[in-house]
Amino acid sequence: MIEFWYEFASTYSYPAAMRVQRLADDAGVALRWRPFLLAPIFNAQGWNDSPFNIYPVKGAYMWRDLQRICAKDGLPLKLPPFRFPQNGLKAARLALAGEKDGWTGAFTRAVYTANFGEERDITDEDLLRSLVKRAGGGPDVAWAQANTPEIKDALKAQTDEAIKRGIFGAPSFTIGDELFWGNDRLEDAVAWAKMGDVGNIRPNMI
Amino acid sequence: MIEFWYEFASTYSYPAAMRVQRLADDAGVALRWRPFLLAPIFNAQGWNDSPFNIYPVKGAYMWRDLQRICAKDGLPLKLPPFRFPQNGLKAARLALAGEKDGWTGAFTRAVYTANFGEERDITDEDLLRSLVKRAGGGPDVAWAQANTPEIKDALKAQTDEAIKRGIFGAPSFTIGDELFWGNDRLEDAVAWAKMGDVGNIRPNMI
Repeated sequence: MIEFWYEFASTYSYPAAMRVQRLADDAGVALRWRPFLLAPIFNAQGWNDSPFNIYPVKGAYMWRDLQRICAKDGLPLKLPPFRFPQNGLKAARLALAGEKDGWTGAFTRAVYTANFGEERDITDEDLLRSLVKRAGGGPDVAWAQANTPEIKDALKAQTDEAIKRGIFGAPSFTIGDELFWGNDRLEDAVAWAKMGDVGNIRPNMI
Repeated sequence: MIEFWYEFASTYSYPAAMRVQRLADDAGVALRWRPFLLAPIFNAQGWNDSPFNIYPVKGAYMWRDLQRICAKDGLPLKLPPFRFPQNGLKAARLALAGEKDGWTGAFTRAVYTANFGEERDITDEDLLRSLVKRAGGGPDVAWAQANTPEIKDALKAQTDEAIKRGIFGAPSFTIGDELFWGNDRLEDAVAWAKMGDVGNIRPNMI
């Protein structure tokens, strides 16, 4: 199994989210969607904003790089962004609420498209409800569930687990203890997952 | 033409340096080796050390990631490193001194192998002289030349140019104004260079 760790504010999580299911399916690898929050992790590093805003030269590069990646992958990208970073808290709770009924993946892709492809405000309740519906969920049930203490705690626990696993950015991919960071590591992560549990000997890798 | 910007202390510049000439040759693209120094750039961002040391979680990930990359590329990697980051000043000046006689590429590969594959001290004069010789240069001439004001100024100018071009890390690749950052962007950079000057329309990219 491959676990996909993502944050709705994260730019490089967008192209990763749009193809992770297809790549996992093609490799015959199970996929678990793991939304989490980057803010607590960045805060612990002394950042109170995205590093792409703190270091503008790096930010300028990132947007151009994302533009190239989206063009290559055929994904819509509208610049400048509606707001960066957007607050992904509500969307992340809804994504967790969708796990039981299996619409987390479709909802996640819809939120990323709204954020980076359509310059929409992903904290807007009406928008989020419409995206839940489009993903196959029931907006009223999902909204109520996303605001229960259970889901709120589950998102906190997910973020705590990310930190414990050495995750420091998004997107990240884990296969057991093996961590891969970045959209550009997705293929390697899927290849690693496909090789299965062969102890410490993994052909062509380590 | 593709320009390859690298710093001898940079871990991800190692796998990039080892294959950039082959990839450029295969694509029929001219290559220019552009050693520069990261310290002035990092200092300007408020860092007085490698970000991989400042953020240990990111550093731990980087070493593991580099291990996987080197295993995949068949490159030697000895861990822990001799010292990280090593001071690449002398090696960078020698690399510039090698441009005229065309041994910069071979020397660069030799220094990276010594640094990351053999746990050697790349500030050591005897080692550097032996690497110049192995690369096809004359150690005495190269050493004298590397310490002239011309070469010292040329390295400063190269670093200033990197900053002006929006470079903030290594390895970086430029094709005209187009910037690519990271070993994992090398293939894209070469593909971009190969398409040549077709104005603003670049098929399959932007």
